[in-house]
Amino acid sequence: MINNNTWTANVLTLFPEMFPGSLSYSLTGKALKNNLWNLKTYDLRKFANGKRKKVDGPSAGGGAGQILKADVLDKAVGHIIESNSNYNRNSWPIVALSPRGKVFSQTEALHFSKCKGITFICGRYEGIDERFLKFHNIPELSLGDFILSGGELAAQVLIDSIVRLIPGVLGNYKSLEEESFVNYLLEYPQYTSPKEWKNLCIPEELLSGHHQKIKNWRLNKSEEITKKRRPDLWERHKSSRNH
Amino acid sequence: MINNNTWTANVLTLFPEMFPGSLSYSLTGKALKNNLWNLKTYDLRKFANGKRKKVDGPSAGGGAGQILKADVLDKAVGHIIESNSNYNRNSWPIVALSPRGKVFSQTEALHFSKCKGITFICGRYEGIDERFLKFHNIPELSLGDFILSGGELAAQVLIDSIVRLIPGVLGNYKSLEEESFVNYLLEYPQYTSPKEWKNLCIPEELLSGHHQKIKNWRLNKSEEITKKRRPDLWERHKSSRNH
Repeated sequence: MINNNTWTANVLTLFPEMFPGSLSYSLTGKALKNNLWNLKTYDLRKFANGKRKKVDGPSAGGGAGQILKADVLDKAVGHIIESNSNYNRNSWPIVALSPRGKVFSQTEALHFSKCKGITFICGRYEGIDERFLKFHNIPELSLGDFILSGGELAAQVLIDSIVRLIPGVLGNYKSLEEESFVNYLLEYPQYTSPKEWKNLCIPEELLSGHHQKIKNWRLNKSEEITKKRRPDLWERHKSSRNH
Repeated sequence: MINNNTWTANVLTLFPEMFPGSLSYSLTGKALKNNLWNLKTYDLRKFANGKRKKVDGPSAGGGAGQILKADVLDKAVGHIIESNSNYNRNSWPIVALSPRGKVFSQTEALHFSKCKGITFICGRYEGIDERFLKFHNIPELSLGDFILSGGELAAQVLIDSIVRLIPGVLGNYKSLEEESFVNYLLEYPQYTSPKEWKNLCIPEELLSGHHQKIKNWRLNKSEEITKKRRPDLWERHKSSRNH
């Protein structure tokens, strides 16, 4: 049963029909059915005024593309806060998805998974009236250095990465401490049967049955791959090791 | 009509039912209906052998989590290449989605949008047998420094960012040169009516009607925000300006 403690994602969007979308399958889908998390979508258009239900307007200063209106967003966020009793911004952050934001990473995923929930404001590319973000002190969060047609897919990605960290969702299938990015290392190469495929063999260390040998091999490979592929991450790994 | 020149995303996945998912709405959805791009999903399970249709096995060396089998992936990729006449890896890259990969950015989106299409191999977190990637020389691509329950949502994000760059999809609504990340700058703040909201005014420069003044204001704000929020991007902007 969903109760007050169930982690909840509120999504404010012009496309509520996009949800749960891919989140209704696999791991996140099963967890949603089992009430391990909860999803509420809010249609931004319902908070618009007048007959035409206008949610956006032209960019002040000119240029193509419409901007989401501050008053409409304000009304919607007010409604979300009021309809969740004792809404607390610290335990239930509100974030806007935008390529201008701080880049999302596993650190944020872990933080958000320990909150009561999160409220996403899905920007469409043209943007959000800056005054709304400023007035409510809403931080922007970005998926990475690329442009999407809207924040909805970004919200789904964030929800997926957060939900799998909620206790009970993954089961014991892998301890979270072993995961990539926790210690700023990429994962080591993985192999499964057969032992030989197209003349390529599983490294003998992995077949040795010797726990410490396997552990060392994997750590060495993780370090090697991280150094080669992600020198930026390798630097962070080194400095985290020194503290 | 879909023809040989229609940009096509092939998706190899254990969850074909996740597609087109969110991609069937909004900009990408309209473009899909109008045959401006094409989507083909391939169910990995169909390429498994035996009655049990096993696609994965335990990780060599131990540890929780299953690994996708090299022979099954090999058969699937062979089928994709054969069923697309004159498949050329240069004009139709094959990439595996994985947190160990190179981090995706707008540069890759632009590159892929100029290809004939792309073939995505959606890893599930546990991973892909390394020998398959090595044998076919398939690069890994990552959405960012976080873990997802599978590559499917990442593939949708990549497709969204690529498809909006295909001629005709966006229309002329904004010249792509104006976009964020092309020059390593974040976008300037946006505003729309009313002029004053909650005592916050649209900056007067934007209401001046003076084209050059507006342009300067926006560039200054872009630089200011990039410096503050993304010093890494700012460094790249500065060095790109010097070339």
